[in-house]
Amino acid sequence: MSRETPRLSLATVCLSGTLEDKLDAAAVAGFDGVEIFAPDLVADPLPPAGIGARCRDLGLSIDLYQPLRDIDSTDPDRFAANLRRAEATFDVMAGLGADTVLVCSSVAPDAVADPDRLAGQLHTLAGRAHERGIRIAYEALAWGRHVNTWDASWRAVQAGDHPALGLCLDSFHVLARGSDPAPIAGVERDKLFFLQLADARELSMDVLSWSRHHRLFPGQGGFDLPRFLAPVLRAGYTGPLSLEVFNDVFRQADPVRTAVDARRSLLALAEATAHRGVGTDPVGTGPPALTGPAFVELAAGPELGRALRALGFSRTGVHRTKQVERYEQGDARLLVNAGADTGGSGSGTGSAIVALGLESADPAASARRAARLCAPLLPRSTGPDEADLAEVSAPDGTSLFFCRTAPDGPGPVWSHDFVAVDEPPVPGTGITGIDHVGLTQPYDAFDEAVLFHRSVLGLDTVADGEFAAPFGLIRSRALADPARRIRIALTVSLLRRGGWSPAVADPQYVALACDDVVATATAARDAGAPLLAVPANYHDDLAARLELPDATMAAYRELGVFHERDGGGDLIGVCTELLGGRLFLILVQRTGTHDGHGWADAPVRMAAHRRSRLPRA
Amino acid sequence: MSRETPRLSLATVCLSGTLEDKLDAAAVAGFDGVEIFAPDLVADPLPPAGIGARCRDLGLSIDLYQPLRDIDSTDPDRFAANLRRAEATFDVMAGLGADTVLVCSSVAPDAVADPDRLAGQLHTLAGRAHERGIRIAYEALAWGRHVNTWDASWRAVQAGDHPALGLCLDSFHVLARGSDPAPIAGVERDKLFFLQLADARELSMDVLSWSRHHRLFPGQGGFDLPRFLAPVLRAGYTGPLSLEVFNDVFRQADPVRTAVDARRSLLALAEATAHRGVGTDPVGTGPPALTGPAFVELAAGPELGRALRALGFSRTGVHRTKQVERYEQGDARLLVNAGADTGGSGSGTGSAIVALGLESADPAASARRAARLCAPLLPRSTGPDEADLAEVSAPDGTSLFFCRTAPDGPGPVWSHDFVAVDEPPVPGTGITGIDHVGLTQPYDAFDEAVLFHRSVLGLDTVADGEFAAPFGLIRSRALADPARRIRIALTVSLLRRGGWSPAVADPQYVALACDDVVATATAARDAGAPLLAVPANYHDDLAARLELPDATMAAYRELGVFHERDGGGDLIGVCTELLGGRLFLILVQRTGTHDGHGWADAPVRMAAHRRSRLPRA
Repeated sequence: MSRETPRLSLATVCLSGTLEDKLDAAAVAGFDGVEIFAPDLVADPLPPAGIGARCRDLGLSIDLYQPLRDIDSTDPDRFAANLRRAEATFDVMAGLGADTVLVCSSVAPDAVADPDRLAGQLHTLAGRAHERGIRIAYEALAWGRHVNTWDASWRAVQAGDHPALGLCLDSFHVLARGSDPAPIAGVERDKLFFLQLADARELSMDVLSWSRHHRLFPGQGGFDLPRFLAPVLRAGYTGPLSLEVFNDVFRQADPVRTAVDARRSLLALAEATAHRGVGTDPVGTGPPALTGPAFVELAAGPELGRALRALGFSRTGVHRTKQVERYEQGDARLLVNAGADTGGSGSGTGSAIVALGLESADPAASARRAARLCAPLLPRSTGPDEADLAEVSAPDGTSLFFCRTAPDGPGPVWSHDFVAVDEPPVPGTGITGIDHVGLTQPYDAFDEAVLFHRSVLGLDTVADGEFAAPFGLIRSRALADPARRIRIALTVSLLRRGGWSPAVADPQYVALACDDVVATATAARDAGAPLLAVPANYHDDLAARLELPDATMAAYRELGVFHERDGGGDLIGVCTELLGGRLFLILVQRTGTHDGHGWADAPVRMAAHRRSRLPRA
Repeated sequence: MSRETPRLSLATVCLSGTLEDKLDAAAVAGFDGVEIFAPDLVADPLPPAGIGARCRDLGLSIDLYQPLRDIDSTDPDRFAANLRRAEATFDVMAGLGADTVLVCSSVAPDAVADPDRLAGQLHTLAGRAHERGIRIAYEALAWGRHVNTWDASWRAVQAGDHPALGLCLDSFHVLARGSDPAPIAGVERDKLFFLQLADARELSMDVLSWSRHHRLFPGQGGFDLPRFLAPVLRAGYTGPLSLEVFNDVFRQADPVRTAVDARRSLLALAEATAHRGVGTDPVGTGPPALTGPAFVELAAGPELGRALRALGFSRTGVHRTKQVERYEQGDARLLVNAGADTGGSGSGTGSAIVALGLESADPAASARRAARLCAPLLPRSTGPDEADLAEVSAPDGTSLFFCRTAPDGPGPVWSHDFVAVDEPPVPGTGITGIDHVGLTQPYDAFDEAVLFHRSVLGLDTVADGEFAAPFGLIRSRALADPARRIRIALTVSLLRRGGWSPAVADPQYVALACDDVVATATAARDAGAPLLAVPANYHDDLAARLELPDATMAAYRELGVFHERDGGGDLIGVCTELLGGRLFLILVQRTGTHDGHGWADAPVRMAAHRRSRLPRA
């Protein structure tokens, strides 16, 4: 399989830390080059030549120095002063050994409106740069005073007509304004000096704030980046794919982690663009065909085994060498690991989701793809007769196994590692499989997790929102495959919690599918399952909203049923109490094409879970 | 002095927690009543009658139940269903014992545009309510489909023409749209059913997001709330002043603390409105005449005394009973306390700002005002001959003393508690006084701190912004008196920091004024003061920006001088290294009317401070 990776570059503005921290992180993550942001250099004790040497030592080229702002001026004295300022920048670049500088379209009141005059000033600037062996990459800021679209900047570059004057294209500025990127394919190849890439969620705020605070790496937001990159590559651009992402969270998070996330985003973008027939594919293996959850592995709290039996799960096997038991009902397979680290921040011990097994048509190919997308492959200690399962770590620390349950097809069968136990099966309650898992993400890793699941697993976003929970707002995003066989619901606090946070920390759940949740919950309750009590006020409100039959409402009140409706159908669910510090289970019945994950009722559930943990009066 | 406090009410949406947490917090803070937000009730295990009883036990009236949304409809069946939904709400209210419900203007696609039809439906709704002894308070959401201004809602109420139909006015919806509140004075008194108050900073985003995430308590934002409240009171409104503030930070912060902050905001608003001649003043004593900093008290780290001597401070006294030394130079007075708690989160031991002494024309009146504005008065242990200084605690834990330095005037003189020491004075370096103090605020208390300093001290915001620091974005806000004798610069991380945060935690500084900072810094350096090394790159950049004389630049490079310019003049400063974990000192020279606090250069300084703490190679 032939793969080719384009040159990948990262702007230092994307990362937290001092310039040293940022350069180290870019190198560790495997970037080929960097854009150096002037304020990072200004705060650094090394002179420009020292920074240049440091980059060379780290194997990083300096692909861009940025930015030079507000260069053109209707005031000749001001323009002369701006040229002196530019010369000082060229001095810095000579020290760095950088040959391309970003010049943003002016936002100043004295910006030049007249196209000929602007062209003349850009030509003068380019001439000065050329004498120093430097190129001017001119970029239209979306909020530039007169030049604020990519085609306006392209006209200015053409009119400026100097070999040292070319275009810098930034996907944010183009896509945030809704401009059509297709005509970029017609730009002269030699004039495409630089390319900056950024994604963003659709937010309704002024474009400056949006750009300065909320950019994302490609694949984390809602922009169609392949649609932008394709015409740029068609025009013949061969420079680096570079990220310039201003993001409040990334600017305070571990820079090595952010840099790895950044590199993954470019690899996935190049792959997606290649799949549209343009450019080369650095990944070289399509998204894995994942056909459903093979199992969910849980760290065992003391309550877990009893609760699973009450829910109708039978213990069907024990692992050959590890303290792991297998429980099954229908296609729902849960592994209970008595030796696992329970993870989580501050939740103490108890049950937790530690791994997901995913059915793959080709587990080895899935693992190879994950590794190429910078997923940390975990070292495995496998006994001689055991399946060699490929295991990678998701951003929240959950392990992902690519595996097979059925004995036909390539690769190892995970369940062969279990020895059947000779126990009478527990009567089932009607659970048929795993609907989805719900995972709280680490605050700094939410967008990273979205991209990870999209790129490594080939899932896509099916819901994106936020809701007001009792102890603060929650961001939520669900990812699924097109057939909705694998669903993963991610949540995170909108703001990182402080000292006052009596909520259940980092909750997790497994949603178990059934066809008749009232019947399943009744059977489970009768068998002693610890179902969560739901306030009568909730059911009073539900009755007023949905006008359900009295008999249904009576059952709902008795069992603590939640019921949400969307345009496609209903999601009817029953939660257990917390099984230890953070884990619970939900029985869910989906009707029609309901595509939700219970977020409308989550605040009520969260208040109830917190209440169930208060000391009994 | 006659004081009268209006009835004060708080919406449960303002607070974090479950309904129980919220009601308890409102009662602890001294509110008279609450607005109950329906989702808080829905998640509560007590039935409505139980919640009503709980409120009565806590001394809280239920002034409003909210909201009923999207009531009117162009679809008769939908309208009938909406009336059934309203009846269910009236059932809840009967249980609560609440008699007023908020009805928001509809945002639904089927909202009624025709004024007569809308009036008819509102009349019908009011009739149903009236039968249950309930009043409808109709409010225009700023993003309502057809009714989205207060005067449109007033026309609908007039046309609806029912004694149980009146107006709810919300300052956010009126002021966010830029509507003129003055004509509210002409609304019929009996139709003003309810009043909701909220402030906000000017943000350029869609009004819905602005309203749902970024409302503030009065005095924390930029709205002119007295201009809104005055015409409402002139119209004859006698109901409660109620806060409805959706704020992401408040929704995850300690609810008791938020409720106290909320109550302070209403008291200060009523005072400010009374000062404009409308309504009664619950505070009853105007803002104190504060004429400057009396002293800054520092917890003593080991480096502090030596650094102060090198900066030209003489030790002039020791406290009669406490381990406190007094240092003086010009009008700069610093107390060094060897027995103080150094505070701060995670900064370990070392020097810190623990108190500010503020010169008050009437210290006792200042303290009385602070107490009436809910400032925590700290218990004092005072020896028999010692000054009984009034001490209150600011939101970040800094103590504020209201006191006098000069022996003329009422109240105790703080410096009488010190016995002069018989030491030769250290040669001064030209420090003339205290320019300002810089204090990092706790994440959840930033807006609280702004209001505290505005209301309790009578300061006002003179700068409000944010900047990108090496380890994340920083919000900044400076408060000062009109004469700029007292300046306090507050900062906070835009996002609460996580595990990766190598920055200096919670930095604090005292900015010391001088007339010639180069001369002062030279003398201090020669005496061994630990001045902060500033990168040459910074000075290269400065030279390119400001075109200063070469001799000036040479001195700047040698001493590590920072230089900022605004329209009014220059701020030229020299920092010390960190004196312990978090404290440093700055020498500052202000020219003209420069009104800044060094935030443009703060990122360079922060990187340098972090570097100075790295292990030496």
